[in-house]
Amino acid sequence: MTHTVREKQKLINRVRRIRGQMEGVERMLEEEKGCAEVMQVIAGVRGAVNGLMAEVIEDHILMHVAAAELSQEERDEGAAELIDVLRAYLK
Amino acid sequence: MTHTVREKQKLINRVRRIRGQMEGVERMLEEEKGCAEVMQVIAGVRGAVNGLMAEVIEDHILMHVAAAELSQEERDEGAAELIDVLRAYLK
Amino acid sequence: MTHTVREKQKLINRVRRIRGQMEGVERMLEEEKGCAEVMQVIAGVRGAVNGLMAEVIEDHILMHVAAAELSQEERDEGAAELIDVLRAYLK
Amino acid sequence: MTHTVREKQKLINRVRRIRGQMEGVERMLEEEKGCAEVMQVIAGVRGAVNGLMAEVIEDHILMHVAAAELSQEERDEGAAELIDVLRAYLK
Repeated sequence: MTHTVREKQKLINRVRRIRGQMEGVERMLEEEKGCAEVMQVIAGVRGAVNGLMAEVIEDHILMHVAAAELSQEERDEGAAELIDVLRAYLK
Repeated sequence: MTHTVREKQKLINRVRRIRGQMEGVERMLEEEKGCAEVMQVIAGVRGAVNGLMAEVIEDHILMHVAAAELSQEERDEGAAELIDVLRAYLK
Repeated sequence: MTHTVREKQKLINRVRRIRGQMEGVERMLEEEKGCAEVMQVIAGVRGAVNGLMAEVIEDHILMHVAAAELSQEERDEGAAELIDVLRAYLK
Repeated sequence: MTHTVREKQKLINRVRRIRGQMEGVERMLEEEKGCAEVMQVIAGVRGAVNGLMAEVIEDHILMHVAAAELSQEERDEGAAELIDVLRAYLK
C-alpha cells in the first residue's frame, strides 16, 4: 500500500483506536463489568472495524482500480482483488 | 445497467427467489408459525440479499470501473458511485 | 408466533414493504436502470430486512424467553432457539 | 459479568487474539503491505469481533434473561438490555 504519508497515518490512527477499545474490553472482562456495558463497547468496535475496512477499500479502488496511470493488467488485477474481498465481506 | 442478457436473467432470478422467500415469511406470519422458524427464513433472506448485492457490485466494478473501454471520466464516476454505496453498506 | 393482532399486522406490513422494494429492484433490472441506483435500493432492502429481523427477535425475547408466565422448560427452549439464530445471524 | 472462571478466560483469549490481529494490521500498514492483504486481515478481524459478540450475547441470555434463579424484575431488565444491544447491532 503506497499511500500518501497523511493517508497512511490516518489509517494507523484508526487501527490504534480499535486496539485501545479492545484493551478496554479486556479490562472490563477482567473487572467483571456488566454484560450490557461490554456488549455496547464491542458494538462500537465492530463499527470502527467496518469504518477502517471502508477506508482501506476506498483507497484500493482509487489507487488500484480507477487510477489513470494503471496499465489494464494492473487494473484487472486490482478489480479481481476487490471482488474477492467484497464477496467474503458482504456475505 | 447494460448487462449481457444472461447476466441480467441471473440477477432477476435471484430477485425472484428473494420475493418468493418474503411471500413465505408473510404466509408464516399469517399462519402464526413459530418465531424460531420465521427467524431462520429471515436469516436466509438476508443472506440472499447480500449475495444479490455482491453480484450487482461485482458487475458494477467490471463494467463501470475496470473496463478497458471506459474514458477516465466515466471510470472516475463509476468509482465514486461504488465508494458511496460501499460506505453506506459497510457501516 | 401468537402475537397480538396489532403486532402481527405491523410485521406483515414490514414484509409487504420489503416485497414492494424487491418488485422495484426487478423492474429496475428489466428496464436496465443504472447500477448505482439498483445498488442503493438493494442497500435499503438489506436495512429493511435487518429491521424486520430485529423486530421478530425482540418479540421472541419478550414472549418466549423473558415472559413471566413461561415454565423454566419453555424458557430454556426459547433461549436455545434465540442463541441458534443469533449465532448464524451475527457471523 | 460474573462468569465462571473458565468462561471468562475463554472470552479474554478471544479479545487477545483480536488485539494481536490489530497489531498485525498496524504493522502491515507501517510496512506498506499490499491493500489486498490488509483487507483480508481486516475481514478476519470483523469475523472475530462478531464471534466475540455472539459469545457475550449468549452468556447474557443464559445468565441474565433465561436463568431460573432470576427475579422477574432482573429478567425484564436483562431482556431490555439485550433488545437495546441487538437493535443497534442488527442495523
